[in-house]
Amino acid sequence: MVNSNIEGIVLTKLKQIHDERGSVLHMIRSDSKEFVKFGECYFSEVLPKKIKAWKCHRLQTQNLAVPVGIIKIVIYDSRENSNSKGLIEEFTIGRNHNYLRIKIPPGLWYGFSCLSNEKALLVNCSDLPHDPNESETKEINDPSIPYSWNV
Amino acid sequence: MVNSNIEGIVLTKLKQIHDERGSVLHMIRSDSKEFVKFGECYFSEVLPKKIKAWKCHRLQTQNLAVPVGIIKIVIYDSRENSNSKGLIEEFTIGRNHNYLRIKIPPGLWYGFSCLSNEKALLVNCSDLPHDPNESETKEINDPSIPYSWNV
Repeated sequence: MVNSNIEGIVLTKLKQIHDERGSVLHMIRSDSKEFVKFGECYFSEVLPKKIKAWKCHRLQTQNLAVPVGIIKIVIYDSRENSNSKGLIEEFTIGRNHNYLRIKIPPGLWYGFSCLSNEKALLVNCSDLPHDPNESETKEINDPSIPYSWNV
Repeated sequence: MVNSNIEGIVLTKLKQIHDERGSVLHMIRSDSKEFVKFGECYFSEVLPKKIKAWKCHRLQTQNLAVPVGIIKIVIYDSRENSNSKGLIEEFTIGRNHNYLRIKIPPGLWYGFSCLSNEKALLVNCSDLPHDPNESETKEINDPSIPYSWNV
């Protein structure tokens, strides 16, 4: 099981209930330990070799899972008051071995890329509905983030 | 756009935001007209040609969307006090042309099968977390439901 050294990141292993017709895959429940409130559920497809980066939310917490394909998520902590300020972490998530939920609190920069040959699907159950005014974006090669996506 | 004649079924067309890296697909928001409360988000895979049927919830409302593949959903109304009692309806949902959310209130029997060559993914944002005591199941060929799945 993977762990994070970035303050506020929580990784939670999720149940996969095998069925020969197709598995049932847990995501999040109102009585899950990490659940606070429901804002929106939406999906983000990531085509093979494609990258979506960077984004930072001022207010919204993300709860992400990957039921289809394999995704690499990269998180950068530039928060002034964080004990993990300056840290960058990479997580490979997807089925079957790394099927987990990742909670990303506000204030962290994150991006993701598809590592699988099949199109990946990332699902977000965030605590606030989408609001274009509470997030910022940066180009994938922005020099303020010490990470190279190898494009 | 498809409509339903079964009391309580609501079909809502969902936004697909095209992106060459992979589309963003809406599902449900806390301020969506059909949203009541959040109970659980989970996924159900359906492999090509497979069928998952029948199920009926006594209390839980389902909000279903299909971001991957194509699914046929069949709904049977056996509710005593329903104006549409006895009605059976089939809906084909999935992308790109029938990307919609279907709300299934408690008391209806439903099942689904995968129509696509690729594995389909059904996402449910229900108003209650899973509770094995509030649902019933029947075999796919149960004679009390006047529908043939052609297996």
